[in-house]
Amino acid sequence: MPDATSDVWTPWMRRALQLAGLAEGRTSPNPMVGALVLDHAGKLVGEGFHAKSGDPHAEVKALSQAGSKAVGGTLVVSLEPCCHQGRTPPCTEAILASGIAKVVIALQDPDPRVRGEGITRLRDAGLEVVLGVLEKEAAYQNRAFIFRVCHGRPWGILKWAMSLDGRIALPNGASKWISSSGAREWVHQLRAQCDAVIVGGGTVRSDNPLLTSRGISDPEPLRVVLTKSLDLPDDARLWDTSLANTLVAHGWDVDQSKFPAGPDRLVLDSVSPLALSQALSKKNCNCVLWECGPALATAAIKQKCIQEISVVVAPKLLGGVSAQTPLSNLGFSSIEDVLMLQNESFQKLGPDWVFNMISSLD
Amino acid sequence: MPDATSDVWTPWMRRALQLAGLAEGRTSPNPMVGALVLDHAGKLVGEGFHAKSGDPHAEVKALSQAGSKAVGGTLVVSLEPCCHQGRTPPCTEAILASGIAKVVIALQDPDPRVRGEGITRLRDAGLEVVLGVLEKEAAYQNRAFIFRVCHGRPWGILKWAMSLDGRIALPNGASKWISSSGAREWVHQLRAQCDAVIVGGGTVRSDNPLLTSRGISDPEPLRVVLTKSLDLPDDARLWDTSLANTLVAHGWDVDQSKFPAGPDRLVLDSVSPLALSQALSKKNCNCVLWECGPALATAAIKQKCIQEISVVVAPKLLGGVSAQTPLSNLGFSSIEDVLMLQNESFQKLGPDWVFNMISSLD
Repeated sequence: MPDATSDVWTPWMRRALQLAGLAEGRTSPNPMVGALVLDHAGKLVGEGFHAKSGDPHAEVKALSQAGSKAVGGTLVVSLEPCCHQGRTPPCTEAILASGIAKVVIALQDPDPRVRGEGITRLRDAGLEVVLGVLEKEAAYQNRAFIFRVCHGRPWGILKWAMSLDGRIALPNGASKWISSSGAREWVHQLRAQCDAVIVGGGTVRSDNPLLTSRGISDPEPLRVVLTKSLDLPDDARLWDTSLANTLVAHGWDVDQSKFPAGPDRLVLDSVSPLALSQALSKKNCNCVLWECGPALATAAIKQKCIQEISVVVAPKLLGGVSAQTPLSNLGFSSIEDVLMLQNESFQKLGPDWVFNMISSLD
Repeated sequence: MPDATSDVWTPWMRRALQLAGLAEGRTSPNPMVGALVLDHAGKLVGEGFHAKSGDPHAEVKALSQAGSKAVGGTLVVSLEPCCHQGRTPPCTEAILASGIAKVVIALQDPDPRVRGEGITRLRDAGLEVVLGVLEKEAAYQNRAFIFRVCHGRPWGILKWAMSLDGRIALPNGASKWISSSGAREWVHQLRAQCDAVIVGGGTVRSDNPLLTSRGISDPEPLRVVLTKSLDLPDDARLWDTSLANTLVAHGWDVDQSKFPAGPDRLVLDSVSPLALSQALSKKNCNCVLWECGPALATAAIKQKCIQEISVVVAPKLLGGVSAQTPLSNLGFSSIEDVLMLQNESFQKLGPDWVFNMISSLD
């Protein structure tokens, strides 16, 4: 009988993961999920994916497409079906009602409301359940959701663009553009995969960025400014919220009269990356992108808010002893102690290289 | 009739370039040259390459192997045959004496003593000459020789190893080891391709390096220390010249009593990368490797002593505002003006990446 280590289910699960990925960046706080239904003879009769929070779950969509052809068939799904009443009814009950005989699952749902209970419900009802097909791939696809569910803060991606000699600006602050247009388009895509994009007040003052995905994601990710001082320009591009929402996060001890017109407000007890991360988790962010300067980036790393690092390296030499570098003090005194990264992927974009790294921070 | 654009000669010329490359790092001040002889029926009857200065030239070796089978045949050679008496007799005369009917050449020799005269001599004697087969590849292989002949200073390669955040050491100076053992072995190979390895006094004081190819090259490249002060340790590993020769270069205004025991001395009118480069060119160096700190590296770039840049990037984050970066001030105030590099090659070595870049400096 085929089990999780069998190749029988792998191609179907790959398709389920493809389906799930179609909604990348749009399902938070939910995970991405893809599902398909094979009839009793093994023929594909239904497909579906979870498009956004509040919409039907992937399993329900695939079963709905399959209709009565699901009877005696197999459901292949990239995440354990839910067994709790959320904004939509439990998927386990829809599966039982459909007449499905077997359920093939990539990954157990880490959500404490599920965490194996969905599988137990199905098995108790007499269905055969195969667990663990392409489990690693499924966990990687939903790494942001899993991390938030387990840690109570979003998966943080830190991004910077630098020259081959490790500079993110010239001594006079000029940084437009170190990277090529191709790399900048890649950044727009990266933003589209995230729920929020975070900068500090300094970046608003020096770069006046737009921080949108240029329409790739609709709605655009939330733009977040973390500021201690509220010393912000009156006319920043971020204050125009017709393109995307903006949130300015600050502490209690600021001059409220300086709050700019346009953005929403988030008051934090502590103006720190961790406090902001926890607040954004409560605002349904699975994944946030840090596009900040060295000081905030370093603070975010120290507070374990960074799980992934994306670096664009341009084939240029900038030099400049006083020129900005990606990070400030991490406090290491031995090479054995420095932060090690795992190479996840590498790509060439025009003249530039892009490194995507997973940090071992939890 | 086959000419330079024909595919007929390409495979043979590729073989000639392979042969030439067998002596990489050992032919200076001469170029690398490979040659082969096809008999009148197109069958390979002789091969040779120039092994080191003073040894027979590639053409002579290939013709010698072919013997009388060269009559009516074709000589394929990666560089224009010489027509002047050097440490060995002119190759043109050996070719004429061999009975060869046709000579296929990749590249004209830029040496002012040849520069087309070899080809003219052959054509005047009635031989057919095809010029330009794999010309670009041949020019790249001998880029160091060509550069020195044209500019009077060696081709300079600047190498550094850094973390993904652009640091070459921690704030306390610790830098062993940022790169992996695989990348360090690659550096040994890089040294073996060069005639000299250059550091400043600061690197001797802080790192006490060995700077050899670990036996890959025999003899080892010359190890060179450029120092303004002669403030050098008494017991540096470089002063032990049993493994490799060491040259300490300084100016006139130093306390001669501080000169360490062991190395040879080079007195420069100006203690600058350019003066050192010119002196090393006169010492038969085609190619030199700069393994120095940021100040000397930056000075070498500014004086156009760097034509190629090799960077090892380790998947680590070091941080440290006061930590060393690869370069100091290059003096740019606009991103449009910064130094652009051409990507020559890229390789992954264990966890590290190695970028090999050509600078546009001449």
